[in-house]
This record gives sequence, structure tokens and C-alpha cells, in this order.
Amino acid sequence: MKFLSYKYKGQTSFGWTEDEENVYDLKKIHNEAYSSLKDYIASKEWGETLDKTEAIPMEDIQLLPVIPNPDKIICAGVNYDEHRLETKRETLAHPIIFLRVAESQVAHEADVILPKNSMKLDYEGEMAIVIGKEGRHISKEDSWEYIAGYSVYNDVSVRDWQLHTSQWGPGKNFDGTGAFGPYLIPRSAIQDGENLKLQTRLNGEVVQSSETDLLLFTIPELIEYISGFTTLRPGDVIATGTPGGVGLKRNPPLFMKAGDVVEVEVEKIGLLRNPIVAESE
Amino acid sequence: MKFLSYKYKGQTSFGWTEDEENVYDLKKIHNEAYSSLKDYIASKEWGETLDKTEAIPMEDIQLLPVIPNPDKIICAGVNYDEHRLETKRETLAHPIIFLRVAESQVAHEADVILPKNSMKLDYEGEMAIVIGKEGRHISKEDSWEYIAGYSVYNDVSVRDWQLHTSQWGPGKNFDGTGAFGPYLIPRSAIQDGENLKLQTRLNGEVVQSSETDLLLFTIPELIEYISGFTTLRPGDVIATGTPGGVGLKRNPPLFMKAGDVVEVEVEKIGLLRNPIVAESE
Repeated sequence: MKFLSYKYKGQTSFGWTEDEENVYDLKKIHNEAYSSLKDYIASKEWGETLDKTEAIPMEDIQLLPVIPNPDKIICAGVNYDEHRLETKRETLAHPIIFLRVAESQVAHEADVILPKNSMKLDYEGEMAIVIGKEGRHISKEDSWEYIAGYSVYNDVSVRDWQLHTSQWGPGKNFDGTGAFGPYLIPRSAIQDGENLKLQTRLNGEVVQSSETDLLLFTIPELIEYISGFTTLRPGDVIATGTPGGVGLKRNPPLFMKAGDVVEVEVEKIGLLRNPIVAESE
Repeated sequence: MKFLSYKYKGQTSFGWTEDEENVYDLKKIHNEAYSSLKDYIASKEWGETLDKTEAIPMEDIQLLPVIPNPDKIICAGVNYDEHRLETKRETLAHPIIFLRVAESQVAHEADVILPKNSMKLDYEGEMAIVIGKEGRHISKEDSWEYIAGYSVYNDVSVRDWQLHTSQWGPGKNFDGTGAFGPYLIPRSAIQDGENLKLQTRLNGEVVQSSETDLLLFTIPELIEYISGFTTLRPGDVIATGTPGGVGLKRNPPLFMKAGDVVEVEVEKIGLLRNPIVAESE
């Protein structure tokens, strides 16, 4: 079972698919009781047996970012040891946390934008967590029950703007850079803490290859830390960090250019693909 | 003329006041055409002559943060020279930019929360800009016309969490720390670039005192830089940075404790006051 947000005949909706060919409209099935996937995963009906209404062919919909309207997107930085070593950073007692704005997001197969004021567009393949339940000061032990499910994130970064000052915000928030999708895979489909392979490919060539067991701060540790300062809410996204192999740290550096295609694949969770397109003048 | 967002008889609305005694409900005056001050300032009716319907007494409303639901809150760090010197940072070619989530905001007179996992709660008095028009790649010359107006911000920071790692996100996003208000003062009430006194007081004692002429990156420079990476939209908030005198850099350090009252006043823009209250156990 895979959940998705999409546009169909000009209307924004959300639904589910099994075979990635037929989509069932959950907004319609639930008589518009929920306006978005964010509202639905917060409801009591989330996790119940799913109805099929008439199917919409997948090719007729336009995918949106899995959660198009999260209240917040919280990103972990330098959360794999290989990436920590390549960026020459010390081991830390706390995760590095920064924020991304919802407006910077794009869907699976949508254009990632090479901005006109930078040539240093870099990929960062990541596993993403979507929160399903409100909580603050959540313990590691309780953390799993706050997870609605998982998806794939490409935390595309504009490296020169990221490093203008000590704070990474600008380089992490360009329009058209936060690729998120294609599906939300419910927590029940994966064992809690299951080790999953993660791969990023640029024009078919593997550029990042790791597994989620190598996260420096685990999912429970991230949830405990983040909920120590903010109330996590349904639909909130946690991008768990990227492994080694980013373009900035290669010799010579490898940046994405217009015409490239970038893919991030997380085992059992999905394959997120985006073309790189130059910003219009 | 001062604009405000508020709750009245359980309903969220927005309006205006002249005398800070009588509030006129703009949602009602415009027949619910705009659901929030954010929508209203984006409309063609923003700036037109204001009607008076029956007045609501100010004491009967509960103020909300000026813009309770901004798409993004963009904060400039270390943007006064005195604060740059006290934090021992070098002059920079670009502004330091970080993000705050809307949920961290509180209104004028609402509780700022001393969290149970820190004792290092610090004030940061600032002038805030509210964007009124959508734009990307805005030049300094054009920047003023993108401003709907100004307000006061207290970018309350949890210093130990801010400095856990290189990225300030956690310490800048605790629940109940982004004080914002009381009013939106329209751009027309202030000369573009007018020099305004800014003062922060803790329990009546002046702890920060500066003027907006001393901003390192001016308002046009901030708007040009920020719109270089993200589309600015109506209701977006830019907190322009705090002057010297923060509690962290005093000798001995001065942190806020439960029972304290913190005030930020910006000349011609307003006085923002908040009590400090301990987080409930």
C-alpha cells in the first residue's frame, strides 16, 4: 500500500495505490472529511482497511510532494559517518538540525531548478519520516508510534549559498529543490528500525550508496531530540540526513546541470526521480 | 492606523484600530472575503480607506501574533555591529539567515515559555518586516514596494540548544518563543529607511538600546538577498536581527526566568511585552 498526494482534473486530492497503475481517491471515499493526506494520517481512519472506488489511471494524475503542506520540514545534517568524514566534521553529542520551507518542495518527476545565480547544485539522497501523531518530549522508546510512514527525500542543496555564512538556510531553501516522494509507505510495511539500502544516481551512475543502519543519530534519537524543542505534528517531515558521496566533496566536484536526471532510491520505500531544469530567465 | 490579528468570541479574525481601544473587524467589513490579515494585505483593498463597523472593545479580544500563519519566518542573525563584536564574529559579505517555524510564535502579552530542558532563555529585540507582495530576485531599488508594513519581534533564543551544533535551528524554534506584535504598522506610516530607536527591557531595565540605522545589512539588502533564493510572499516575516546587549554575552550572563517581563519597543512601530512562564511539567 502506497499513499500519494496529487492533482487530478485541476483538483488537489490524495489517495492510495497498490500496483502504481490504479489510484483510489481517499478524499472522495471519505466524503471530503479530510482535505489532505496530512489531515488523513492524523485521523482515526488512518490504518483502516481501504476501500476501492472507481480507479483513476496513474498516468492521468499529476503527483504532488507526498505532504505538500507540512507545518515544518526538519532536516538532519551530516548524519552518516562517511559524510561526516568527507566534510571533516567532529563527532557530535547532538544532531545537526536545520529547516526547509514547504514552498521549496517538488514532487517525483517534477523539475528540480538549477537557479540562475548558482552553478553549485548538489544532490543529497535521504530517507524521510512523516509524523502521524502530535507529541512533545517524546522518548526514544515511544518514538515509533509517532511515525505515520516513510518516503524518499532529495535535499538538493545550493552549495555556495549554503556556505555564504555559518547558517545553511539559504542554500537549503531555494525554490524547486526539496524533492519528496513518490509515495508515503506506512510504518506497518517496514519493521521498526529495519536496515534499508539507500542509493543516489546521477544520470544512471551511482553517486551515493549506503544503508540506514549507518545513521549516526537513529530515528528514535532524532525524534527524541527534535521533540525536545518543538511539538511534532501530523504531516511534519523529518529528512534523516544524507550519506557520503555528495558532489561538493568529490575531486573534482560534481554538480548537477540542466538536462541531468537525479534518482534517489530507498529499499522498500521508493524511487524518486527528478530532471534538472534551468531557471527561466 | 494599526492592524491586528485576534480571537473574539472564539473566532479568529483581524482588524484595525486607531486609538488602541476600539477594534474594527475587517473580516466582517469585507464579508469574509479574506480569512486572515495575510490574505488581506495581499489584496487590492489593502491600503484603501477603512470603514468603521461597530467597534469591539480592545479588552474583549485576545491578540494573536500579527501574522499567525506566515508561510515562512526568515531571520537575520548578527545584523548589528555591536552584536557582531560581542559575539566575536567577522564582517560578512552576506547576511546570516536562519528560519523560525510559525508554530513557535506567541502574541503580545502571551506567555513566553521557559522550557523545562534549559535555563538559558535569552531575549533578542528586533524590528520585523511583513511582506505584502509576491516576488523573486527583487532588486534593492524595488524592495520597498514589497513591504506591507512593520512590527516588533522578540526572537527569544534558547542558547544552549542554539549552540549544540553549528546550526542554530533548535535554539531558535522552541514552542512559545517567537513573540510578534502587537500591531502591523503599514509601510506608509514610516518613511522608507527612517531611522528608528529600538529598545529591549527586562523587568523595566534597559538591556538593548540601538537604532535601525545601525543595521549591517539594510532592509533593501536583506530583501534582495533573501529573494535570491526564495519567492517572498504576502505575510512572510523578516526579523531583521538584534543589536548588542543579549543576555548570553553579558558578564555575568543574564538569562530570563519565570516571573520576568520582557519588553521590546521600536519607535513608531510598537511595544511588545511578554511575561516569562515556566513550561508545565
